[in-house]
Amino acid sequence: VPVNAQGAEGFRTLGELEETAGRRCSPAVWGYIQGGAGEERTVQRNRDAFGRWALRPRVLAGLSEIDLSTRMLRDAVSVPFYLAPTAYQGMVHPDGERGTARAASAARVLSMVSTLTSDSLEQIAAASPGGPRWFQLYLQPEFSVTQRLIERAERAGYTALVVTADAPLLAVRDRQRRSGFALDDAIPLGNGPDVRPPARELASKGGGKFAVREEATVGWEILDQLRRVTKLPLVVKGILSAEDARLAVSHGAQAVIVSNHGGRQLDGAAAPLDVLPEVVAAVGTSAEVYLDGGIRRANDVLTALALGARAVGLGRPVLWALAVDGSTGVARLLDLLTIELASVMLFTGRGSISQVDRSLVQPVTP
Amino acid sequence: VPVNAQGAEGFRTLGELEETAGRRCSPAVWGYIQGGAGEERTVQRNRDAFGRWALRPRVLAGLSEIDLSTRMLRDAVSVPFYLAPTAYQGMVHPDGERGTARAASAARVLSMVSTLTSDSLEQIAAASPGGPRWFQLYLQPEFSVTQRLIERAERAGYTALVVTADAPLLAVRDRQRRSGFALDDAIPLGNGPDVRPPARELASKGGGKFAVREEATVGWEILDQLRRVTKLPLVVKGILSAEDARLAVSHGAQAVIVSNHGGRQLDGAAAPLDVLPEVVAAVGTSAEVYLDGGIRRANDVLTALALGARAVGLGRPVLWALAVDGSTGVARLLDLLTIELASVMLFTGRGSISQVDRSLVQPVTP
Amino acid sequence: VPVNAQGAEGFRTLGELEETAGRRCSPAVWGYIQGGAGEERTVQRNRDAFGRWALRPRVLAGLSEIDLSTRMLRDAVSVPFYLAPTAYQGMVHPDGERGTARAASAARVLSMVSTLTSDSLEQIAAASPGGPRWFQLYLQPEFSVTQRLIERAERAGYTALVVTADAPLLAVRDRQRRSGFALDDAIPLGNGPDVRPPARELASKGGGKFAVREEATVGWEILDQLRRVTKLPLVVKGILSAEDARLAVSHGAQAVIVSNHGGRQLDGAAAPLDVLPEVVAAVGTSAEVYLDGGIRRANDVLTALALGARAVGLGRPVLWALAVDGSTGVARLLDLLTIELASVMLFTGRGSISQVDRSLVQPVTP
Amino acid sequence: VPVNAQGAEGFRTLGELEETAGRRCSPAVWGYIQGGAGEERTVQRNRDAFGRWALRPRVLAGLSEIDLSTRMLRDAVSVPFYLAPTAYQGMVHPDGERGTARAASAARVLSMVSTLTSDSLEQIAAASPGGPRWFQLYLQPEFSVTQRLIERAERAGYTALVVTADAPLLAVRDRQRRSGFALDDAIPLGNGPDVRPPARELASKGGGKFAVREEATVGWEILDQLRRVTKLPLVVKGILSAEDARLAVSHGAQAVIVSNHGGRQLDGAAAPLDVLPEVVAAVGTSAEVYLDGGIRRANDVLTALALGARAVGLGRPVLWALAVDGSTGVARLLDLLTIELASVMLFTGRGSISQVDRSLVQPVTP
Repeated sequence: VPVNAQGAEGFRTLGELEETAGRRCSPAVWGYIQGGAGEERTVQRNRDAFGRWALRPRVLAGLSEIDLSTRMLRDAVSVPFYLAPTAYQGMVHPDGERGTARAASAARVLSMVSTLTSDSLEQIAAASPGGPRWFQLYLQPEFSVTQRLIERAERAGYTALVVTADAPLLAVRDRQRRSGFALDDAIPLGNGPDVRPPARELASKGGGKFAVREEATVGWEILDQLRRVTKLPLVVKGILSAEDARLAVSHGAQAVIVSNHGGRQLDGAAAPLDVLPEVVAAVGTSAEVYLDGGIRRANDVLTALALGARAVGLGRPVLWALAVDGSTGVARLLDLLTIELASVMLFTGRGSISQVDRSLVQPVTP
Repeated sequence: VPVNAQGAEGFRTLGELEETAGRRCSPAVWGYIQGGAGEERTVQRNRDAFGRWALRPRVLAGLSEIDLSTRMLRDAVSVPFYLAPTAYQGMVHPDGERGTARAASAARVLSMVSTLTSDSLEQIAAASPGGPRWFQLYLQPEFSVTQRLIERAERAGYTALVVTADAPLLAVRDRQRRSGFALDDAIPLGNGPDVRPPARELASKGGGKFAVREEATVGWEILDQLRRVTKLPLVVKGILSAEDARLAVSHGAQAVIVSNHGGRQLDGAAAPLDVLPEVVAAVGTSAEVYLDGGIRRANDVLTALALGARAVGLGRPVLWALAVDGSTGVARLLDLLTIELASVMLFTGRGSISQVDRSLVQPVTP
Repeated sequence: VPVNAQGAEGFRTLGELEETAGRRCSPAVWGYIQGGAGEERTVQRNRDAFGRWALRPRVLAGLSEIDLSTRMLRDAVSVPFYLAPTAYQGMVHPDGERGTARAASAARVLSMVSTLTSDSLEQIAAASPGGPRWFQLYLQPEFSVTQRLIERAERAGYTALVVTADAPLLAVRDRQRRSGFALDDAIPLGNGPDVRPPARELASKGGGKFAVREEATVGWEILDQLRRVTKLPLVVKGILSAEDARLAVSHGAQAVIVSNHGGRQLDGAAAPLDVLPEVVAAVGTSAEVYLDGGIRRANDVLTALALGARAVGLGRPVLWALAVDGSTGVARLLDLLTIELASVMLFTGRGSISQVDRSLVQPVTP
Repeated sequence: VPVNAQGAEGFRTLGELEETAGRRCSPAVWGYIQGGAGEERTVQRNRDAFGRWALRPRVLAGLSEIDLSTRMLRDAVSVPFYLAPTAYQGMVHPDGERGTARAASAARVLSMVSTLTSDSLEQIAAASPGGPRWFQLYLQPEFSVTQRLIERAERAGYTALVVTADAPLLAVRDRQRRSGFALDDAIPLGNGPDVRPPARELASKGGGKFAVREEATVGWEILDQLRRVTKLPLVVKGILSAEDARLAVSHGAQAVIVSNHGGRQLDGAAAPLDVLPEVVAAVGTSAEVYLDGGIRRANDVLTALALGARAVGLGRPVLWALAVDGSTGVARLLDLLTIELASVMLFTGRGSISQVDRSLVQPVTP
């Protein structure tokens, strides 16, 4: 249920955005957005990780232009951040995913569009004709349903397939459990009735044994299977170890996303930023590495890039902006971050994204 | 005095459980449950230790089943956690230890039953016919009393003897002292009038000298003596150093429990989790290693297992569940943790307990 | 707008000074003084860095005199701290920069006078005839304007030129943005209408590209250019890396100031104290090294000196003192810190500044 | 002015003691007791240092007796803690230093009696005939006054001379400055009108130069001079570095006290516990090493002993106890700590102080 039908409210800073969004959403929806798995230790940890790195300013670098543009696989983008896939955006504003994609597309910011949208993937594509747009895939209990989703995404002009690997199941989230918020009752799925979210629980077989739902039993060979049905490049989302990064690459992934699903799946999981260096070292130049989780400001973007990410995803802040002012809000958020990133580049003496390297950061002594 | 005679109150999360239990218990009883030795530095430290480890998720592991079952010595159990021994459960709910054991037995979770129970050890056994059940032993001032307790435990079907080694004396606990709560006035002992709790204080002999009460003067040879009177495997509880772990094994212990008595004995003691690796390295395959202290969630369970524990004990949370809803509450707690553990196993790509190894965790950079 | 026209209020400690100043300034002005870039992570980090070092007292050192005097380039000063340049002091008290400079000069404390003053640089010089006084330079869009400023500073007896290198742009500061406070509307510039503050934003050219305003596109060769138009020694302010320190020296700087502009430019930047050792190592004896950022007490002064700074700058505390009691307040602040520094020298067994070395400090174990 | 003339109030824990004392003292006196130099960073740091060490319990050690007695130089004492010298005890209770010494003597706990007492050193000795009792010496402007104090202390049966080396000056203490509390106005000095406290400030000579008062200009040769006028063993209090510890020993000190004057002199100074290991290593067996600063509980005592201290001093807690219940309060405090220490020894498997070694503690991972 949209909680903000009238739209039109400004915000001047990220802090103000978050506060305003908190007032605009119902407590249950806000709990869903902000919350995470279990006690939210990992939600907190994702943010804390950035506090352990400091930027090293550089001065008098003789820059006459700052160029934030870069590439993500085959797509030229204007900035090294993108919209991470988030579900059910219609819940926070009637503009929904169409509004979000429209704002992103106008700024040439890449959108990763969720399988679990309020709008259909075709409607979202139509609302953001230029793209760039990737399709996030939740594997479906029947592979034929999965295949049909991929074919629709290809036809609608999505240019890569983001396979979410860290949600074979939806985790227990204490905050949601206490508020009684149930995701799939909240709003119907835009991609049709045969598309299903991940299972909510494992089926107990007694004696400490549990059955995993069919689509979640797949191994890395699923990537090979997907490559047989699509030409789209494959991106694996939810990697948090060098081992899995290597496996993804060896099964044909062209990019991996270091992510713990915003702290929403495995409470206690490592922060993406803490794992990023080992993943970057593991894949070398054989795949691109992205990161999401805890990105709030331009200095976070630059920290992750300095540690080897090619681009970073924004999750919750996009929902805040959508909740506060619909598509206009998202556009404003992207604008704020872009301007801030340009200035942070100037302060660190980097004129282009390719100049961002490890020497830009140093660990903070504990 | 039971504070919750009517029973029947639900809880959806561990946090809610703790809050509800806090409201259901009298302040003095709650202080007894939650409190610890001295200023409770170690109570806090036990929890903090888990925050220094992060889990490493693994994806697309191709698991079709999660099997949590394992063995603790000769007993097959459905999960790698057990009920740590806690005293006087009748104080928080009339279901008492019978209720706790019944819930555990139904779920095939191992109970370590305290010497200092409200019910008798035979009543507890009768309430949980299938077990698994171990008997926790406080050495008694007269060895004949100790021996009689062991014989009763054997007859009642307890399958191991857990010798508590860290309570030659009950520590000063500031919170209890301030509330005026006195343990043994609270409720009569179920195992008969000749069974005594550890001494409350040392006897001063002046000039800085203190006499230790007889039963607490024993050394490691007590294990040899116990082995002469029972065939039950011996487990030593309260180990917090490699040195003592080696001594326990060399005196015939088949398992050791890394524990500081939930922070209730030596304030300032190291956290069990911090000591676990050295103990595991010290005993190798010559004994099983368990751990209690600070376990609240499934990710805590897995962290301890990854660092070498075979199983971990739950203390305070069981009392919370018992206080809130008696035996039903304990059953619900075990169910919550079991389901959560199964999902955490899935998120870390482990299909069975034997697959949990050191690579599952990494230290969090401070 | 001056908020404290009546003057005359005492303070006994630095804490009291800050509290009183907070009450005397309008919220917007106070937010401008206290705030920093972005979320003020670096403002906090600047202070935290000092907490990671402890002083090592020395006793019975046989000192009959404590001598705090030292030299900063060609100027003899009575203490190893100085007034860092801060803009628009007329905003907090009608005494303005003249009052500040007068108090400093009377105590033979060096003032770095900002380009962006409420009074003109000549008025300030006239108010503090003896100096010592350096002129802080913001490069102007037209070099002829820059050159005229330098000539005026030379004529007015300023003895060094402090080139601010870390402000090619004024950073986004959340607190200011939310309060709506706009610096240059607040008070007219004393140095004339052709003098301009740094640009407020980069000009977007679309597609993630931004143009840098002319005067901010300069590289290190600007130092060579400045040396051609002045004999004054050059000091580069805003160095935060060994690399830039070496570049500054190689382009003729006689001193560098390790600074992140009080956390007001690049949020997320390293703390000056954390970077000081690498800068000191990089420049060796080829230039003097100063530091500002987070200095509040005499022990902070000594910590920075022990790590290699020749002198340290005071920023916000000077504004507090000016706000509370004008020139008298500044004099009192300098007196408090001087007396405290003398006692701290005595407690560490150092009779003169030249005796302050690395052995005076040790890291605090985390 | 005594704030607690009626006496007679109990306390069950250290926490309760501190709270009660805070209510019994006037705000100014309480600020004087609890406060420290500057912003009290070091007061906090002294406590924090203990949190970085954990005790390693040992079990089944076969102890039938716990013996806390030890020796401090020539004196046999019942426990390895002593009363650190604190001034003007008459300010908190009419029992004053006589009451404190009486309680200590009865328990055979060593008192270090301050130069700056409310009672005379002879009255204090008379109130505690058995001792053990050492005299803490503040060097006096005229050596003849110093010498007379020493002769009186010898005659009155004090058995060692504790030379305070870290107070050539009384430090600025913000809390006192704000409350307006002035020490020497509070109560007359018991040792006569010619005895003076350390200077309150350095005399400014202008230009950043300050004169040190005569008695504070002495170097290490003062120890040689003192040895010429007394046979009492010399103890140097206020050592915080290996360098000074070696100097003390080379000038004939038989013991050193690692101390920063309870955080009351050099704000920012290292914590005694952090420096203890280097001092112990430096002096080896050539002198005894004591420590004060931050000791609150028996586990703190044992931590310091494990790191090499022979005994540790109690400061503020003694004043709390005196404030709450006079001599009776001090006796109760000593009793509480003694009993707690005995139990902590039992829990760590140590039957006597000589068994306390480095293996008793381990660092807490940050």
